Amino acid sequence: MTPALSPVPTELAATLDTPAAVVALDVAERNIARLQAACTGAGVANRPHIKTHKSAEITRLQLEAGAIGVTCQKLGEAEVMARAGANDILISYNVLGVVKHQRLRTLAARVKLTVCCDNRTVADGYAQAMAGQVRPLAVLVECDTGRHRCGATTPEAVVELARHVAAQPGLRFDGVLMYPPDGDLQESVEFLAQVRARCSRHGLDLHTVCSGGTPNWARIGSLSETEYRAGTYVYNDRQMVGFGAATLADCALLVYATVVSHPEPGRVMLDAGSKTLTSDLMGFKDHGLLLDYLDASLYKLAEEHGFVDVSNCARLPAIGEVVRILPNHACPVSNLFDRLLCTRAGVPAGHITIAARGQVT
Amino acid sequence: MTPALSPVPTELAATLDTPAAVVALDVAERNIARLQAACTGAGVANRPHIKTHKSAEITRLQLEAGAIGVTCQKLGEAEVMARAGANDILISYNVLGVVKHQRLRTLAARVKLTVCCDNRTVADGYAQAMAGQVRPLAVLVECDTGRHRCGATTPEAVVELARHVAAQPGLRFDGVLMYPPDGDLQESVEFLAQVRARCSRHGLDLHTVCSGGTPNWARIGSLSETEYRAGTYVYNDRQMVGFGAATLADCALLVYATVVSHPEPGRVMLDAGSKTLTSDLMGFKDHGLLLDYLDASLYKLAEEHGFVDVSNCARLPAIGEVVRILPNHACPVSNLFDRLLCTRAGVPAGHITIAARGQVT
Repeated sequence: MTPALSPVPTELAATLDTPAAVVALDVAERNIARLQAACTGAGVANRPHIKTHKSAEITRLQLEAGAIGVTCQKLGEAEVMARAGANDILISYNVLGVVKHQRLRTLAARVKLTVCCDNRTVADGYAQAMAGQVRPLAVLVECDTGRHRCGATTPEAVVELARHVAAQPGLRFDGVLMYPPDGDLQESVEFLAQVRARCSRHGLDLHTVCSGGTPNWARIGSLSETEYRAGTYVYNDRQMVGFGAATLADCALLVYATVVSHPEPGRVMLDAGSKTLTSDLMGFKDHGLLLDYLDASLYKLAEEHGFVDVSNCARLPAIGEVVRILPNHACPVSNLFDRLLCTRAGVPAGHITIAARGQVT
Repeated sequence: MTPALSPVPTELAATLDTPAAVVALDVAERNIARLQAACTGAGVANRPHIKTHKSAEITRLQLEAGAIGVTCQKLGEAEVMARAGANDILISYNVLGVVKHQRLRTLAARVKLTVCCDNRTVADGYAQAMAGQVRPLAVLVECDTGRHRCGATTPEAVVELARHVAAQPGLRFDGVLMYPPDGDLQESVEFLAQVRARCSRHGLDLHTVCSGGTPNWARIGSLSETEYRAGTYVYNDRQMVGFGAATLADCALLVYATVVSHPEPGRVMLDAGSKTLTSDLMGFKDHGLLLDYLDASLYKLAEEHGFVDVSNCARLPAIGEVVRILPNHACPVSNLFDRLLCTRAGVPAGHITIAARGQVT
């Protein structure tokens, strides 16, 4: 890759105020089309996770491309997406708490809502929240098939919880949800086979089997899932390139930063720090890839400064120069901005509002 | 410290929606008074850094307590603070870029503004931005006295740049700024002595000598500085406790989170992840201190999940229980929220809006 001497298109340069998060809409649209094609080809419904973009505009692109609805991690994200017109929403999270139960009931009256749980306390909370409601709330039981985040850890526990859910007035057991580990799906295949057999014995219908994750997107359908939820694929990031799930050309979200200081030989400072890029390392040793200086290392961040080792660079970035950074992790970066600058074929193409930015509750 | 069985005051519990950032206003006010007293006692003007709270309400408390003005890291923060009524603002940053120069000129016409630089490109940009303006822009030259972030690295370079600034129409050389390393101030003392001697030889008036940093707050005045800018002291955090700059009782900002899952023995999951706490480790091995479970370890974060090892805990947190987390680093946490919940003596006391949240440009 030849470093571009001027990474900022002329049309953009005059109005660019760094640090800026810039999305190549043409790249994002290609990513959206590709994942949709993978789902369609495998006969799996596409339910993208909005955690990465948190934007009504991108949601619209995903729905127009064929997605059946969206996935949200937090209730607050779901509320924003409902206001933006999404009417089929999965919250892939244990939603728990007095205030959240009130909000959940309101949202369930408004859209086709599915939630999930991995324990009885959460399930009982859903039942309490839905007491007296006519339309039951669809509930998926989360399975831990090897990622060891949330999820019931054995097929027995999954089906026991499924039976508990099915027995609650106000709730409807709708199936299972999993977030398989990146890479090998064998444990998930075996876990799911046991869940299917046990559900069948107990007369429980697995209407929905929802899998997800961008790293495994090329294997969509391997679990005979009915739905797939991926999030990061829409923008991709350095981590996804590392996983082999994307190439640099598939990365739609970049941070543009300005060199503001060259305090000593071999080191320059950028105007982007952890309040722009986050401190997520994701297994990397530095904080993002400088696309115009591949031999440089963004080795440290202060809140508003990026420390760059340029001692291995043949050409040095000048003070005032704008450089492009591929973030290690796209999702928390877009969560730091109110809006993204868009381009299409390198030409400015408006802005995207991060409508659900900061919706952590 | 005895773990509190119910960390959430009854009055708060009914309306609390987690994860929430909660500020004990009485603690923050005590911190504000203490730092002000240290400055006053040393005859040093107090110019608090707003990066930690980014709030007009807290700025007002600081000004009422005796601060002469505020410090901002980014121009966008300064614009918000000017709108909130601050009229004496220091931007402790190399402000650079066509759009920023326009904004800077507008802001300089509105408030008493001081900026800083550590190189000629930035200084020349200020001069260009201020061309034709009647009132010159006050400029500090940043010195690197051992932190190795920004700053001219030798007294010679500082004074050379100071002379360059002084020679520009539209600019007024106002003095120097430094951010000494945490701990030993000897290097800063020596650096500054040389700067003073050289400035004197060149007839340059050091009207302002601005030092800063919460870790060194107990040594305010040691550099014979005229101004001190500290930010984190208003809330403090786990890092400041580690530095010995604060005790647990001085920590005003906590994150309240709910236990949403107990997927396997020895591990519970919180509804706060990196989109709430950030991934800032600041030298710690885990992501925050659970004040109600000091033997637990918040060892990993996903975007919306906190992984807690509770295998060493005598008592286990129950699903649905709310726990309090002392963040490793307060500043980027408040930057993730639109508003903070306030308490006074544990009783809810309204909200604070994070008016300058996300102002990275």
